[in-house]
Amino acid sequence: MKKRKMAKKKYKKEFEVTPWSVEGKVDYERLTKEFGLKLIDSKILERIKKHTKELHFLLRRNIFFAHRDLDWILDKYEQGEKFFLYTGRGPSGKTHIGHLIPWIFTKWLQDKFDCELYFQITDDEKFLIKEQTLEEINKNVEENLLDIAAIGFNPEKTYIIQNTKDIKLLYKIAIKIARNVTYSTASAVFGFKKESNIGIIFFPALQAAPCFLPSVLNKKNIPCLIPAAVDQDPYWRGIARYVAPKLGFYKPAQIHSKFLPGLKGEKMSSSEPESCIFTTDSEEDVERKVWKALTGGQKSLKEQKEKGGNPDICLVYKYLFYFFEENDEKIEKIYSECKKGERFCGECKKYLSSKIKEFLREHKKKRNIAKIEDYKKNLNILEMKI
Amino acid sequence: MKKRKMAKKKYKKEFEVTPWSVEGKVDYERLTKEFGLKLIDSKILERIKKHTKELHFLLRRNIFFAHRDLDWILDKYEQGEKFFLYTGRGPSGKTHIGHLIPWIFTKWLQDKFDCELYFQITDDEKFLIKEQTLEEINKNVEENLLDIAAIGFNPEKTYIIQNTKDIKLLYKIAIKIARNVTYSTASAVFGFKKESNIGIIFFPALQAAPCFLPSVLNKKNIPCLIPAAVDQDPYWRGIARYVAPKLGFYKPAQIHSKFLPGLKGEKMSSSEPESCIFTTDSEEDVERKVWKALTGGQKSLKEQKEKGGNPDICLVYKYLFYFFEENDEKIEKIYSECKKGERFCGECKKYLSSKIKEFLREHKKKRNIAKIEDYKKNLNILEMKI
Repeated sequence: MKKRKMAKKKYKKEFEVTPWSVEGKVDYERLTKEFGLKLIDSKILERIKKHTKELHFLLRRNIFFAHRDLDWILDKYEQGEKFFLYTGRGPSGKTHIGHLIPWIFTKWLQDKFDCELYFQITDDEKFLIKEQTLEEINKNVEENLLDIAAIGFNPEKTYIIQNTKDIKLLYKIAIKIARNVTYSTASAVFGFKKESNIGIIFFPALQAAPCFLPSVLNKKNIPCLIPAAVDQDPYWRGIARYVAPKLGFYKPAQIHSKFLPGLKGEKMSSSEPESCIFTTDSEEDVERKVWKALTGGQKSLKEQKEKGGNPDICLVYKYLFYFFEENDEKIEKIYSECKKGERFCGECKKYLSSKIKEFLREHKKKRNIAKIEDYKKNLNILEMKI
Repeated sequence: MKKRKMAKKKYKKEFEVTPWSVEGKVDYERLTKEFGLKLIDSKILERIKKHTKELHFLLRRNIFFAHRDLDWILDKYEQGEKFFLYTGRGPSGKTHIGHLIPWIFTKWLQDKFDCELYFQITDDEKFLIKEQTLEEINKNVEENLLDIAAIGFNPEKTYIIQNTKDIKLLYKIAIKIARNVTYSTASAVFGFKKESNIGIIFFPALQAAPCFLPSVLNKKNIPCLIPAAVDQDPYWRGIARYVAPKLGFYKPAQIHSKFLPGLKGEKMSSSEPESCIFTTDSEEDVERKVWKALTGGQKSLKEQKEKGGNPDICLVYKYLFYFFEENDEKIEKIYSECKKGERFCGECKKYLSSKIKEFLREHKKKRNIAKIEDYKKNLNILEMKI
């Protein structure tokens, strides 16, 4: 007993992933086991490819690395049962590149499988755990919505639900979920304590609600696939999948991504702005931040030539690999040139800077013409059905 | 320490009043002290009378017996600050006479002080604590709404809020409340346990929300007076009044009634239909139930004449006193005649039956022409403001 406790303690020290914080260096294989997820393997990639023709680079590079019941989703799809997508955003601040990874992948899934998408903005959650006012959070929401619209989700098939505004769509489902979840269960999943406020204790029911919303609206079970960063798993594992059979719904399936780290090696966090690339950053911001990024280079050009660099610990390389260099040949070339000492940090930084600036120019253009009303108008139709 | 615990235990055995159950014979003076309420005395009755000209019989007879800050409400009123009323209904079943007492008194207050009224239907609460489905509870709501409309609240100044349908009006205020209430605080007030579900733990924030809704809508503080049965006090004492200063709102004031007991002496409860007079009871139902009611009469007519009856423990007398005989002279006459053995149980039962039947005939007429839409249309205006 004591031994087990010790082991747990040690494990905790190495890394900890919860929906509200990620600490330490994450061992993704271990996390997959711990959460009871499955790794995405070549077999399931082949199955996906059968339907999508090509694989998104986020799949090819194992950035979307784990899943639960994705095989079941494909079974259903092959049997003619279409699934819908559900993802979301906790509007704690400005949008950074790390946020875009699941959204861009979600759009790809929407296009390839022709899915409806339910996108939840959990402004209530952020209010309940932060010191910010609802007005401050609403400003974040307005900014985030521009980024969401800039992704280009299919406006005919996308529903953006902001909890405090569109609560009517979710509340009845949420109380059906909540009736089946005790404080004891919820605190085991999320680590609630006596000092936790009664709003955040109820909140998991609201985050789980969209998993079942289309089934309620259509009066028949519709499979749900959730693309998200892996830290959100407790909501699905501990709440949505736990109550689904009690309420007569399908359990939602999941596909999860790793975290894009901050440019200085830690988790990207809006509280460390110099470590993040925000979608609203200026070209100067980008150049400065990339210039100060942590690399795997040697101390001098001479040493770099002799020993070669270490792309595996280099954040500049990581940003190219995760997001800014989609071309596999190019990324492999960068990796091997660095290893062999044929490539220098300055060159890579310049290349990443130019890639980021190019991306942001395009993104900002879309952001400026984004029409969030296109997505909002769909909600009226849902509200009449609920 | 031990002694105190013992005392509490003994006290608990005698009676217990919580928002979900009332057990034992309630000692109202003791309850008033325990809850930190004030008894309604002649001084405050005089102050009310100054504005209302006459006193409602529920005040004259001390059925509305306790308050909190009612003097402050009158101060404000005299200074030209109008207050609003807030009461509600937990739709666990059909409406019985016990439910009507606070509503009828609320209408009187509305008329006398020309108040807005916010009436909350807590269908979510009943769903969260009962075994019923939302559909079953919604049927109760539809029935209850007819009774509420039959009371005749001012349709221009009354807002009926059904939580699952009108949640949008309350949710933002509720999360502001919830952020300030820990699980620890809520469980101390309501006795939540680890097995309590996460919905009912959040619910107190929703029941407290209407206390502040008019202040939010009007962007200025508006005093609130809550007429209700005394078992609802924990919501106001433990939640609404506790958070009000933290959110910059006035604390709500309260005026509380005793419980109309069941015809067999226990608390009126829909689960014991023979002990309740429902608003939909037939004339036969009324006659049968009154005939079987517990009285304070002697075993025989002879004994009754010799020893006199005991109206203080008689449920037939209690029903006349609480509700069906508003005329003070008549009720005193009945009391003294019974005491002196000049009046017999059969006579009283017949009289009560005829009074109830008369009341129900009138009530059913109003119920049949009740237009609940008159109250519902007002909500649209509020929704646009929130």
